[in-house]
Amino acid sequence: MEPFVYRNPTEILFGPGTIREMASRIPPDAAVLWVYGGGSIRRNGVYEQTRDALGGRRFVEFGGIEPNPEYETCLRAVHVVRRERLDFVLATGGGSVLDAAKFIAAAARYEGPDPWEILRTHGEVVRSALPVGTVLTLPATGSEANGNSVISRRATREKLHFTSDHVFPTFSVLDPDTTLTLPARLVRNGIVDAFVHVTEQYVTRPAGAPLQDRMAEAVLATLIEVGPRTLADPADRDARASFMWAATLALNTLIGCGVPQDWATHMIGHELTALYGLDHAETLAVVLTGVWRHKLEAKRAKLEQYGRRVWQVLSAEDALRKTEMFFDAIGMPSRLGAYGISAAEAAEAVAHRFREQGWTFGEDGDIDADAARAVLLSRA
Amino acid sequence: MEPFVYRNPTEILFGPGTIREMASRIPPDAAVLWVYGGGSIRRNGVYEQTRDALGGRRFVEFGGIEPNPEYETCLRAVHVVRRERLDFVLATGGGSVLDAAKFIAAAARYEGPDPWEILRTHGEVVRSALPVGTVLTLPATGSEANGNSVISRRATREKLHFTSDHVFPTFSVLDPDTTLTLPARLVRNGIVDAFVHVTEQYVTRPAGAPLQDRMAEAVLATLIEVGPRTLADPADRDARASFMWAATLALNTLIGCGVPQDWATHMIGHELTALYGLDHAETLAVVLTGVWRHKLEAKRAKLEQYGRRVWQVLSAEDALRKTEMFFDAIGMPSRLGAYGISAAEAAEAVAHRFREQGWTFGEDGDIDADAARAVLLSRA
Repeated sequence: MEPFVYRNPTEILFGPGTIREMASRIPPDAAVLWVYGGGSIRRNGVYEQTRDALGGRRFVEFGGIEPNPEYETCLRAVHVVRRERLDFVLATGGGSVLDAAKFIAAAARYEGPDPWEILRTHGEVVRSALPVGTVLTLPATGSEANGNSVISRRATREKLHFTSDHVFPTFSVLDPDTTLTLPARLVRNGIVDAFVHVTEQYVTRPAGAPLQDRMAEAVLATLIEVGPRTLADPADRDARASFMWAATLALNTLIGCGVPQDWATHMIGHELTALYGLDHAETLAVVLTGVWRHKLEAKRAKLEQYGRRVWQVLSAEDALRKTEMFFDAIGMPSRLGAYGISAAEAAEAVAHRFREQGWTFGEDGDIDADAARAVLLSRA
Repeated sequence: MEPFVYRNPTEILFGPGTIREMASRIPPDAAVLWVYGGGSIRRNGVYEQTRDALGGRRFVEFGGIEPNPEYETCLRAVHVVRRERLDFVLATGGGSVLDAAKFIAAAARYEGPDPWEILRTHGEVVRSALPVGTVLTLPATGSEANGNSVISRRATREKLHFTSDHVFPTFSVLDPDTTLTLPARLVRNGIVDAFVHVTEQYVTRPAGAPLQDRMAEAVLATLIEVGPRTLADPADRDARASFMWAATLALNTLIGCGVPQDWATHMIGHELTALYGLDHAETLAVVLTGVWRHKLEAKRAKLEQYGRRVWQVLSAEDALRKTEMFFDAIGMPSRLGAYGISAAEAAEAVAHRFREQGWTFGEDGDIDADAARAVLLSRA
């Protein structure tokens, strides 16, 4: 096990009806920027419950945060914060809305000339942020209980992340009943997103960290158990609740303590979203087993353990097959062809971006331009 | 799954050499009460490293905290805090020292006439506390990452706990190398203590919380794997590190989110310590399977799952047997006779205390005086 620092101050309010509990968590004199997305919160009851919880506080609504939240949109929100002298950011929605809220909270306090620096430096320049509270309506990204945010800039086809202790939500409301009306596509995306968050922190070289391994396997086994149940019966409230909690624990950074981490699948995937507009989870399903196959020998011990404990199979190869079958079974294609994308073209385009930026990723730092090309060529 | 609130703000500094990191976590102008136990920190290097980390800060040492920390001793420490106008409590040691530090921190800020109220109300009267930092040297109680504390009052043979959000440590240093010189008896105690912390939150009635179940099983399986390794080879630093982290996650309150909890084993055990001076972990080893046998039908589904997933056995009865064999294998007797205690006498004495106090414990609230008597009679 490697040394680590772990701190996660976010208060989780979990369960049906917990939106009202946030009334006591937002300072009574707060002036709130209320951020949301395309308006689903007007159909699932979250809008009314949030407005009630805000009570008499002054608030300004800022809707229209996009999936893969857009930098320019966030800057408009920062302008509103400053103009209206707001001092608290409340996000109601999925990971994109939460990520936008975190960026807005950091950018509102950023004193440099160009807030893009927050993303270019992956958060190094962040010295403070407005407090952020969240009401999560889409289990997937784990953004409700970590200091991460991913922002896109369509003008330059960039998708960058930043991390800062200053943007951990002060509280996050997880009411699984708010997810009952989610379209199947978003549930499926959430299952795959949470699944790959775990594997990025677990399917690496062996690290002598048996507890972290077993906790990762606990989250994977839970997603495999309750994910399909969530899709098969949208009214199964127990399955929704466990799915929601599993997605949070997949990336509240606990299972990654003291172990090497990969994240190459995410980094290659971000490029596919930037280039082709694929959903984030779709890119993960496409890339994951490609990275595993490319690093089969280095990852073999972990893949065999994963196969044995999570899928009851004996070989690394069977573990890959089981993973692809799981994605298939929940209706998530894992090959580029299924999305009408030429693997040869995608491989060249992504390799070009990697070379241009000098990027290398993965727990061994060897997923470079050539590796990214090989990974994508294998996913035709 | 039941609704829950989860918040754990403690910063964990994990790894060899991390004691020095706390220098940046204690306010530079803090005046520190430095609490420790019988002096083991002078033999394992913790004393010098802590003194170095304190740098030029004003501090007052308060040694001599007992195992099962004594109320009167804590009150003397509170007197020192007030007399010397100290504003930070630093604990270096095992769970007893940490628990004492939490009580001292709460009592120093308590304005009522009788600080025993903190324990009598189990923390309800706690409105604030001095900040507490800890350097853990004995993995066992989980006190390094929760808001719990257990204090004893020998004069009245009472052992009571309190819980408060105000006494979560602001930071806890977990340097597994500080545990390399622990006597085998304390390691054994720690393994059993952590093990039973998990089962109290897991072996209950079924709760529709598959992720919490699997995380509990992850901690148990890890303790079963690395516990005996830690005892067999005191120099196995990997095993020490995983044992230390497992003991923390056993009771940082995460695995207990949204599930029923038992704690009857602890409550009966506390009485055995108060009456006979047994080590806390010894009482747990004695009582645990007695409670399980007494509640065999109500707990059968969970015991079968535990047996199947953790021990690869099929029946609840075999799960009990495997548990007792595990305690035996690490050298921890699980019957009262082995400690020279008459089961008949202990059963009557504990039942008397339960009746006198009107206590009922367990996830179904049915472990009363008669149940406690039956549990202890079965552990002759």
